[in-house]
Amino acid sequence: MQPKLIVHGGAWVWPDERDSVLEAGLEAAIHAGWAILQAGGHALDAVEASVRVMEDLPQFNAGTGSLLNAAGIVEMDALIADGASLDFGAVAGVQRVRHPISLARRVLADTPHCFFAGPGADGLAMMLGEETVPNLALVSEAELRNFRERRSSEGGDTVGAVALDAVGNLVAGTSTGGTPHKMPGRVGDSPIFGSGGYADNALGAASATGKGEEILRVLLCRTAVEFIARGLDAQAAADAARDTVVRRLGADVNVGLILIDRRGGFGAIQTTPKMATAWVDADGRVRTCMAGPRFDEV
Amino acid sequence: MQPKLIVHGGAWVWPDERDSVLEAGLEAAIHAGWAILQAGGHALDAVEASVRVMEDLPQFNAGTGSLLNAAGIVEMDALIADGASLDFGAVAGVQRVRHPISLARRVLADTPHCFFAGPGADGLAMMLGEETVPNLALVSEAELRNFRERRSSEGGDTVGAVALDAVGNLVAGTSTGGTPHKMPGRVGDSPIFGSGGYADNALGAASATGKGEEILRVLLCRTAVEFIARGLDAQAAADAARDTVVRRLGADVNVGLILIDRRGGFGAIQTTPKMATAWVDADGRVRTCMAGPRFDEV
Repeated sequence: MQPKLIVHGGAWVWPDERDSVLEAGLEAAIHAGWAILQAGGHALDAVEASVRVMEDLPQFNAGTGSLLNAAGIVEMDALIADGASLDFGAVAGVQRVRHPISLARRVLADTPHCFFAGPGADGLAMMLGEETVPNLALVSEAELRNFRERRSSEGGDTVGAVALDAVGNLVAGTSTGGTPHKMPGRVGDSPIFGSGGYADNALGAASATGKGEEILRVLLCRTAVEFIARGLDAQAAADAARDTVVRRLGADVNVGLILIDRRGGFGAIQTTPKMATAWVDADGRVRTCMAGPRFDEV
Repeated sequence: MQPKLIVHGGAWVWPDERDSVLEAGLEAAIHAGWAILQAGGHALDAVEASVRVMEDLPQFNAGTGSLLNAAGIVEMDALIADGASLDFGAVAGVQRVRHPISLARRVLADTPHCFFAGPGADGLAMMLGEETVPNLALVSEAELRNFRERRSSEGGDTVGAVALDAVGNLVAGTSTGGTPHKMPGRVGDSPIFGSGGYADNALGAASATGKGEEILRVLLCRTAVEFIARGLDAQAAADAARDTVVRRLGADVNVGLILIDRRGGFGAIQTTPKMATAWVDADGRVRTCMAGPRFDEV
């Protein structure tokens, strides 16, 4: 089976000048994951590798570069969903972890639980030997300047990756610093299985981005994957999920989603003006689209 | 429309001697919520009132009486789901809140977010004037003795309530101290919309109990409510949800669920030997069942 990989760097609106730095980051993320898939590696490793690259890049709102909350602290959420076992690992509100996606994977692999939040999640990182850093080390120059000058942050830029490996494993990963100026302790959709990410080898896998409170209320990723169960292809399932959100919550929602079905088809939707996306096409070429791709057209 | 109310005090196994104290607690919870529904009150008020009663009773693993985690600290999770707005409020890992269900309701009503975890959630309680208490004040005599004598806690006893009010609002609430000896920071299904609770006025509302890691992986409450969308009545939808869990995760799962559909039908399932349940029947009588009721038989 031909492996598949798609990544996103958030659905939102931003000036066109910002496209190139997001595009460069997505390409770096795709290359990291694709090298693993091309070598016959597992979708879990590919998704983790792609997300780690974006967590390290200051242009994305995840890991280093996370937005500050209303108290001037970075609080990060992440999830990795394993379609083979219908299992997941997730963390919320971590303040000292360099790679929340890797901590989420350790939750999945090395604990009897699925989800850790708050100081217990940071403590778990230390206990398991995951790399920890001071909270301030996660703040980008640009975000620090915004905070000190009381300017509003640029929003969005949650990151995610979805992979299908050569033996049919589907995995989704999502990582974020959350919404700008969120209240301390706020958890969004990103670490919630079914909302910010979902994976089921029998159907498909998806990662969401946008306003967490909207994604949570419709369990966006699970909703999209359910449409695959009803016989839709990946793009049609993504479209149907978008229609569901709009029907239930109104036309002014801000959500986006990437999806791979079990046959390797891609789907993507966003209700925002932009969604930074990159993928590897059928010819093995890396493609990018900052306006949100449609896979019945590309 | 005739109001409906059902409450649970956890699915698990316990000695029969314990039945009477659970039964008494469930009856007190039912009376608190039923008085509100009988007076024409809102399902949100009824669910909150019923859950608050159980949070205050030491025989239930929620609020006062919560099980200690592996570090000897109470960490509580709660959710209230509002079927009218398809919205919810939830908290995880709170350590100092007397009534987590009420804090969850304040999240729903009084914040721009849906979900708070960790110290930010305790801080929110103080900011909003919700009653806070020392962590140790939430520990029952029995649980303290278990901990100090290194005996294992009795498990389960998560609480929940589902109500349908006279104007058709469906609400679900769930509150818990989590699994015995959980690792610090662990979050289970109870505060997760779609897993520990779900409500949609167009279909139904449900509250789950049992092993959180299993409930989360199948989004148990959302799965049950989806079966109503496919035309099943409440008990058949609950049965179909149980069959889904067993098919996906195996026969040795430990989960339970209570459900009301939009027409007022009850459903309940558990895979455990017992589930403490109480409801008001069509004649207005309070009924209880400690072995888990079936509503195609009662």
